Amino acid sequence: MSENSDSTHSTHSSDSEILAQVSWNSDGLVPAIAQDATSGRVLMMAWMNRESLQLTLEGGRAVYWSRSRGKLWRKGESSGHEQLVREIRLDCDGDTVLLLVEQKGGIACHTGRTSCFYRVLDDSQWRERDPVIRDPEAIYK
Amino acid sequence: MSENSDSTHSTHSSDSEILAQVSWNSDGLVPAIAQDATSGRVLMMAWMNRESLQLTLEGGRAVYWSRSRGKLWRKGESSGHEQLVREIRLDCDGDTVLLLVEQKGGIACHTGRTSCFYRVLDDSQWRERDPVIRDPEAIYK
Repeated sequence: MSENSDSTHSTHSSDSEILAQVSWNSDGLVPAIAQDATSGRVLMMAWMNRESLQLTLEGGRAVYWSRSRGKLWRKGESSGHEQLVREIRLDCDGDTVLLLVEQKGGIACHTGRTSCFYRVLDDSQWRERDPVIRDPEAIYK
Repeated sequence: MSENSDSTHSTHSSDSEILAQVSWNSDGLVPAIAQDATSGRVLMMAWMNRESLQLTLEGGRAVYWSRSRGKLWRKGESSGHEQLVREIRLDCDGDTVLLLVEQKGGIACHTGRTSCFYRVLDDSQWRERDPVIRDPEAIYK
């Protein structure tokens, strides 16, 4: 957690308590589910560490921890598809976070679809069900 | 995966392909999000191993893997609060599963609430927002 942010000390203190009540796993992470606050669609599941949750609280935009890249992942930083956080919920065990978000551009998935959960089990196959709204090459140029 | 089930060999073959396309983590697990198919509420997040997903496919009821107990968790077995699976989705990376379910009893959480995500971040505190629908002592007796 950075001491260099613009937040006040009182905010920091409260944030510490919020973070302390989360049950971080042995890697210091929790799964974070993003759900569209309007449509109710589950958009994606990613991971957060303490710093990313702290930054999410401070900035109101979803910041995850990319396990593959080993660094903070400011959702939408390159695509513009930011997630404005309307509500944050914690589950009974304290080990999963649910974000209710306003999904900018209506696209959460790097494939250019609304939701990352675009494959549906149908007739014993995972079938792509949802359309690509925008070509990823046009998103990440 | 059990070879002793009542399923036909052809079903087994298809199930194997379905399971093979899931990116299981180093513990052989994937996170599984359960969402109410009617209300759209995210009810809980649990884990599945291959056998629990296989059993879910075969039986149409959510079966998870309890990491704390180290065994299969047939959701609702003791509470009656089964989850009838209406749809199963897989995300872009293949490492998270989304179940759209009919939640029996309208209660997914062991605390007797609809959803496990009953705590909401409000004024820098996690506040219990959702009511207990049924006393857990009456559920698990």
